[in-house]
Amino acid sequence: MRPKIYLFGDSITEESFNDGWGSSLATHFGRTFDIVLRGYSGYNTRWVLKVLDRIFPSVKGGDDEAPKAITVFFGANDASVPDGYSAFQHVPLDEYKQNLHSIVSFFKKQWPGTLVILITPPPIDEEARLCNPYIENPLTLPERTNDAAGSYAKACVEVAGECRCPVIDLWTKMQQFTDWKKAYLSDGLHLTKSGNKVVFEEVLAKLKEEGISLETMPFDLPLFHEIDPKDPLKVFEN
Amino acid sequence: MRPKIYLFGDSITEESFNDGWGSSLATHFGRTFDIVLRGYSGYNTRWVLKVLDRIFPSVKGGDDEAPKAITVFFGANDASVPDGYSAFQHVPLDEYKQNLHSIVSFFKKQWPGTLVILITPPPIDEEARLCNPYIENPLTLPERTNDAAGSYAKACVEVAGECRCPVIDLWTKMQQFTDWKKAYLSDGLHLTKSGNKVVFEEVLAKLKEEGISLETMPFDLPLFHEIDPKDPLKVFEN
Repeated sequence: MRPKIYLFGDSITEESFNDGWGSSLATHFGRTFDIVLRGYSGYNTRWVLKVLDRIFPSVKGGDDEAPKAITVFFGANDASVPDGYSAFQHVPLDEYKQNLHSIVSFFKKQWPGTLVILITPPPIDEEARLCNPYIENPLTLPERTNDAAGSYAKACVEVAGECRCPVIDLWTKMQQFTDWKKAYLSDGLHLTKSGNKVVFEEVLAKLKEEGISLETMPFDLPLFHEIDPKDPLKVFEN
Repeated sequence: MRPKIYLFGDSITEESFNDGWGSSLATHFGRTFDIVLRGYSGYNTRWVLKVLDRIFPSVKGGDDEAPKAITVFFGANDASVPDGYSAFQHVPLDEYKQNLHSIVSFFKKQWPGTLVILITPPPIDEEARLCNPYIENPLTLPERTNDAAGSYAKACVEVAGECRCPVIDLWTKMQQFTDWKKAYLSDGLHLTKSGNKVVFEEVLAKLKEEGISLETMPFDLPLFHEIDPKDPLKVFEN
């Protein structure tokens, strides 16, 4: 069976196959891994903790089904400000940290050999959030702030250190580019094509650092250029 | 576990997650199905028959792992002309028909309840094939012709009738649009964004005809709008 990489997170994960970082990974690893989507729009760490064993039920037959890697990408909803429009998605910072620890522990217990990669929430363009027609923000108070997202990103990096997991600090990485607000964010929170490209490249690099790449993983069946035009069936005889 | 839909075919399937019909299906069914990619660039029905049980090994634990549906999309390589540049990919028409029967039988035996959807090869723009820098075509003889693709498409439709499988006659469907060559084909054979959209919509419609749609399948966990902002955890208690 082909090994798997799970993408676990909120809307930024759920939307990732819409010409985004998920479908780019699926294309890149098209003959190597199954990229499995487990994105839940709007969810925070408190909600997913309630259903973690329903999303990832333990498999009877041992670790056949253990994925090679899993990305854990939460925090954008947890970081909603506690007195704004999206307050019901807010999770206090300390609880977010504890929840991330619990999520990582769950995977480490279920799949000891699986690489768990944490991804911090992206930065927030507050002005763009204020223009979002789907969110009833009081005029000058966005429901998410960049400072809050930054605190959750920092906490995520800390948890990664404590759990010895690799982490992608997307909040910091994106803001290294001057035009990050327009270039990477479509509505001040979700990702543009370029923003998706950043996540794709960062995940690819992190996987490679941990020894997971096209160079190290077997392909599923011979590639076209490995097939001898003079005796095409030969390569299938093994 | 979330039910699966397999996409099985040649390069037109392997490339389908590159902003194509595969990633569109994965986005559409993002909370319903896992869309699993089994595309093998350059392959014909003769080659895949040799490795079918390696691609789809029988599972010990019964039909837990039976996919809800599988698309079988071969013929574009089989239909290469027998004396052209891609002759080594050619499979005679009668053998193609027999091979398609064998592939369908394999799935029907392994997964009696799985919907098998056949897809015919797309039409060929011969002029565009002659301009393809990757193919050494003698000046006026393309390695694939539209007539040949049409014969294989017709054979595919016949096999579907004999097996009582639904079929998408892409060869006919695409040519109903006057500008099909430029609109749907990027190099005379592979699909543009619009060509991918045709396949996506046809697969979606065929699934729906067979009772497989967002309206009939359960979602994986409550959708965001189903979560009560006043008591968000309530919905997770079942």
